[in-house]
Amino acid sequence: MFDYTDKAALTANKLTADHGIDLSKLPKIDMSTASITEIVHAMNSNCPDERMKFVFKNLVDHLHDFVRETSITTEEWMSALEFLTQTGQGNPSVFDLQPVAQSDSNYPEFKRLSDVLGVSSLVGSMNDAKPPGATEVSDLGPFFADDALEFDNGASIASEGKGDYMWVEGKVLDTKGNPISNCLLHAWEADGHGMYDVQYSPGGSDCRGRLRTTDDGSFCFRAVVPVPYLIPVPSDNPVGQLIVSLGRHTFRPAHLHMMLEAPGFETLVTALYFKGDPFLTSDVVCGVKTSLIVDTTTETDLAVTRARGFVEAKSHQVLKHNFVLATPEECAEARKRSIQ
Amino acid sequence: MFDYTDKAALTANKLTADHGIDLSKLPKIDMSTASITEIVHAMNSNCPDERMKFVFKNLVDHLHDFVRETSITTEEWMSALEFLTQTGQGNPSVFDLQPVAQSDSNYPEFKRLSDVLGVSSLVGSMNDAKPPGATEVSDLGPFFADDALEFDNGASIASEGKGDYMWVEGKVLDTKGNPISNCLLHAWEADGHGMYDVQYSPGGSDCRGRLRTTDDGSFCFRAVVPVPYLIPVPSDNPVGQLIVSLGRHTFRPAHLHMMLEAPGFETLVTALYFKGDPFLTSDVVCGVKTSLIVDTTTETDLAVTRARGFVEAKSHQVLKHNFVLATPEECAEARKRSIQ
Repeated sequence: MFDYTDKAALTANKLTADHGIDLSKLPKIDMSTASITEIVHAMNSNCPDERMKFVFKNLVDHLHDFVRETSITTEEWMSALEFLTQTGQGNPSVFDLQPVAQSDSNYPEFKRLSDVLGVSSLVGSMNDAKPPGATEVSDLGPFFADDALEFDNGASIASEGKGDYMWVEGKVLDTKGNPISNCLLHAWEADGHGMYDVQYSPGGSDCRGRLRTTDDGSFCFRAVVPVPYLIPVPSDNPVGQLIVSLGRHTFRPAHLHMMLEAPGFETLVTALYFKGDPFLTSDVVCGVKTSLIVDTTTETDLAVTRARGFVEAKSHQVLKHNFVLATPEECAEARKRSIQ
Repeated sequence: MFDYTDKAALTANKLTADHGIDLSKLPKIDMSTASITEIVHAMNSNCPDERMKFVFKNLVDHLHDFVRETSITTEEWMSALEFLTQTGQGNPSVFDLQPVAQSDSNYPEFKRLSDVLGVSSLVGSMNDAKPPGATEVSDLGPFFADDALEFDNGASIASEGKGDYMWVEGKVLDTKGNPISNCLLHAWEADGHGMYDVQYSPGGSDCRGRLRTTDDGSFCFRAVVPVPYLIPVPSDNPVGQLIVSLGRHTFRPAHLHMMLEAPGFETLVTALYFKGDPFLTSDVVCGVKTSLIVDTTTETDLAVTRARGFVEAKSHQVLKHNFVLATPEECAEARKRSIQ
């Protein structure tokens, strides 16, 4: 297991000292689609303003009930966020809008608000529900890019110096345990500084790649151990201020994004989180699910480290995880159950 | 009774013919704070899209329940609308906002949305609840101006040619029936074209005035018969499009705005609506209450018409209505009951 007691724990301790946010006091909840409302309540329970805490508990309950009772679709929810954004911008005659298209700074604020209140996670989980045994979904996030380079198995998606070495390997299977060959995997992650390639200027594709499973459904690649990071929401913007007022922080726990595409199966957008990360129960965008938390091991055999192509260290972390894809029919059935 | 069968009824018939909005089919509901949710549902029931109708019924139920269960204050609700507006405007870096300050075109769109979904009316009624027997509140609207001229009783707040003559008279009383003297009344209304003075450019104070009750609590003034009007929401803006999609129209029924201020009593913001108006049950901003619907009579005695100072007509309409003000203590008690 990677030792999150260093930087992340220091940050967590500082949150406690400076802002009274004691992550260790957050209740241990089995994180799933079913418990998302409880998770958001737990995160907001640190709000120092009792009236605000009460109002937001009621608000989150009604918002989530609305989503569940109407089985709102992802498309409908996106339309609603677009409608709210336009409404905030008032009559075209009132404001002269000049959108600046660049990086994540134009991540729509209403999407951010939806993330923070757990609605994005709920809508995503309901609409992309998976059958028992299949890998669950997590949020796509704003940093996906569909033009990542394609790598051979065993190659590194990260350039040298981007962070602590991590070897990722596993299989892609169907719900009956059969291997899925030629599955296209997209992997992308923040580097050891908690930054995605697209956040650097000038940037270049890094810590990001595509590869395909072999005949027995296997894949393996070199990457870096991702670290928790602050989402780029300025504290003087409305959602940033809300997060602070609710007694929350803007950290996301470390995660490795994955998207898996295979003919005959529904595309899976997911992410893996890491055991021991202090931010697992307080993810600002409510993306963590217990089933997606993995543990890593430390490979100390120098020969293995060298053989895998890691040249600058004596050891490396190993993340072993199998993904299970479901067919459109299986997913349709799961969706039907999730929205009833 | 003023004959609303002319212009207003023609418009109502046109709504039926052109848009399938049959106002006569709207259920007859006793309009009050208690029935506001039912009123909004009735208005939205004409929505041609069954899915949208279902989603908005659920949304309005949850929104109103949220407001009721949290006893949201007017100040909190205004903060929420301001927060949503800022969220829609995104990061300051994303949009270069240049507010244009003029007339009603910068009426905040989120306030408009709140009006259309009945939330403004609900929040206002809860927070400005009045005891039994006292005059109920209605919305202030965006056209109030606190610099209206002060008139003597009997004078006209409207210049010649602004519409059909209307004589307004009554008394201001406390809840025990005692007259309140020296009560400051503000009256303002749209003219016979459905336009407020501030909507004309260049404008000038018209159909607007202040006066004070005499020793026996009486007041009287000359005005014009207001007519139903379209609120200025462009059909290509988000809330305008929503109204159309919900199968609704953007008319407000005719009304005379009144604000009453007297030492020792809580200020009352209200409006009077008119019996026979085809838009009473489908007010786009959900402001009507049954207790505020008045009937007018026609005064055909030419001598009376002339004596009251109406020089250009053989008859005029007469609106007789008493207002009942409550003390802060009585209102506090009523508020307590309304939010439990």
